[in-house]
Amino acid sequence: MPVGTAATVKAVPQHLLEEVGAGGRGAQIILANTYHLYLRPGHETIRRLGGVHRFMSWNRPMLTDSGGFQVFSLNELRKVTPNGVEFRSHLDGSRHFFSPEHSMDVQIALGADILMAFDECTEYPATRERARQSLDLTHAWARRSLDHFRAHQQEVPWHQEFDGQTQNIFGIAQGGMYHDLRRESAERLAEMDFPGYAIGGLAVGEPRDKTREMIEHTLQFLPKDKPRYVMGVGYPEEIVEYAAMGVDMMDCVLPTRAARHGLLFTSQGRLNIKNKIHAEDQGPIDPACSCMVCQRYSRAYLRHLFVSREMLGAMLNTLHNLSHYLDTMQTVRDAMELGTLSALLAQTRLREHEAAARKA
Amino acid sequence: MPVGTAATVKAVPQHLLEEVGAGGRGAQIILANTYHLYLRPGHETIRRLGGVHRFMSWNRPMLTDSGGFQVFSLNELRKVTPNGVEFRSHLDGSRHFFSPEHSMDVQIALGADILMAFDECTEYPATRERARQSLDLTHAWARRSLDHFRAHQQEVPWHQEFDGQTQNIFGIAQGGMYHDLRRESAERLAEMDFPGYAIGGLAVGEPRDKTREMIEHTLQFLPKDKPRYVMGVGYPEEIVEYAAMGVDMMDCVLPTRAARHGLLFTSQGRLNIKNKIHAEDQGPIDPACSCMVCQRYSRAYLRHLFVSREMLGAMLNTLHNLSHYLDTMQTVRDAMELGTLSALLAQTRLREHEAAARKA
Repeated sequence: MPVGTAATVKAVPQHLLEEVGAGGRGAQIILANTYHLYLRPGHETIRRLGGVHRFMSWNRPMLTDSGGFQVFSLNELRKVTPNGVEFRSHLDGSRHFFSPEHSMDVQIALGADILMAFDECTEYPATRERARQSLDLTHAWARRSLDHFRAHQQEVPWHQEFDGQTQNIFGIAQGGMYHDLRRESAERLAEMDFPGYAIGGLAVGEPRDKTREMIEHTLQFLPKDKPRYVMGVGYPEEIVEYAAMGVDMMDCVLPTRAARHGLLFTSQGRLNIKNKIHAEDQGPIDPACSCMVCQRYSRAYLRHLFVSREMLGAMLNTLHNLSHYLDTMQTVRDAMELGTLSALLAQTRLREHEAAARKA
Repeated sequence: MPVGTAATVKAVPQHLLEEVGAGGRGAQIILANTYHLYLRPGHETIRRLGGVHRFMSWNRPMLTDSGGFQVFSLNELRKVTPNGVEFRSHLDGSRHFFSPEHSMDVQIALGADILMAFDECTEYPATRERARQSLDLTHAWARRSLDHFRAHQQEVPWHQEFDGQTQNIFGIAQGGMYHDLRRESAERLAEMDFPGYAIGGLAVGEPRDKTREMIEHTLQFLPKDKPRYVMGVGYPEEIVEYAAMGVDMMDCVLPTRAARHGLLFTSQGRLNIKNKIHAEDQGPIDPACSCMVCQRYSRAYLRHLFVSREMLGAMLNTLHNLSHYLDTMQTVRDAMELGTLSALLAQTRLREHEAAARKA
């Protein structure tokens, strides 16, 4: 799921987002960040404009996060109590308060198809005591999120237009790097019977092996017949691994943010477009890629745009990286249908080792 | 002609530039700036990459300026002699020298379809003596530009590919705000028999009535059967006036630069998208506009993108302004064919007066 922080996947117009990647099918779902839209333009503005889909002219599924992750990232500007989080805006320093109930109200006003329970993203590393206490808060807040959502879901701005269809709320499992806490979290959320589940608190600084281990462990205790979503991952080779384990949804700013910094993903590994080696290279980013950027533009031109700080560089790099990610996921889906997933995994791991060997 | 300074019309991918405006016909010709491409990525790099068309993947006509205008804008960094101009790069302060011969060499390496003679853009205001001296320099340089171009035009990087087709060089008439000097300049250039002619040294700070007067006056003395190009203009209502006078080509950064600053052109005049009045406006920029931006996005969303400094804002604003300009020129062409040019002019002037009255 491409990330569209402020109701825009940075540097990409919606009609290209609808076309990007394998078979021209485009992104099937995108994210927006509750914290950012709450501050600007404001959730009540978006409610009055008919919800975030209409606001940004995106007619496919959308997901909003709870705002918690961003708020907890404001280290010096926040104060956590059992009731919620007091924080200061990174834009103007103004004071705000998010509780589970308030996060639901904001997400209902935004009107994405999937909203996320308000959780505390446990930092890494965390002692067992700290992870335990944080998990209790997350579970209490999951209950309050679910109850408040159920009581107010009719307030979604597009409710009258799509009668009976409302939003879906996903719970978020935490538990730090502790197996028993992760299991407890998955089981407690499953008891609450959410229509979907996320695994949060990963990719927060722990080694990648630990991320993989925690995902594999937690998945066992989450209902297989519901969507299972790992938040905030990852590199292309990671998302293949996790999808193969049974993860249905993932989001990450990596393809878009890396693109703006000139880091491009290809079938042969990563490349940095600002590298002088590309200055007179007439070839595409990736000869194996069928995206509109690789079909039309050379590395030499993309390097020139990057070095000259031209906006078109950010746009083309982003389109390519999104294509690469969506193509990667399509390859996983195809392999699942064909029963060749283990071969795909072996190939992905081999490439990863080769790339690591080239670096070393 | 949209301006693509560094081989990119800022914020617009080439495939949208091919589609923008009336009937989806797109821009028929774009500009690139010799000074900028000379400094970065360098004209020899572009020559090795097959010329600027191939470099940026633009398969329609292109024009390069002579580099003179930019060099003369570097007030503190330049020194003019009869032989040429010594200047310092705005990027790194390095020393460079442009003569008519060198400008030709660079423009031949870039390989645009139309290149411009190296001239001195006379500043405004200028005394008669200063305009006279500057004009003599421009005429001497026009002669040297033409001779050097004729001797070296086979060196264009795409010569072997398009056998026998080479570039076309346009002369530039100067003369400050002096009728007799403008006449002399037009006649001297016409004697040199260029395949096309530009009127330069306008829109440099003089009142708009003076610009119009100088264009109208100079046009009389330039061959009617050759393209006549006014450099660096203008507002939508100006380009209608000048086209009606017989001007065939114009270029200006206004539609693209203004767009990046949130200034949008509409059939009802200008609007500034950052104005709070647009914050919850679900309407398009211009209900009379058929561009892809007006068909899909609201003023509320465009304001949000602008206020949030999102790149998509610059892109969508630019696409709209370019559409408005290309649509405006199409309206002029249609009126010429239908014989309704005087009605179009009357309507344009009326709108201009109404807009001025609303302001006052």
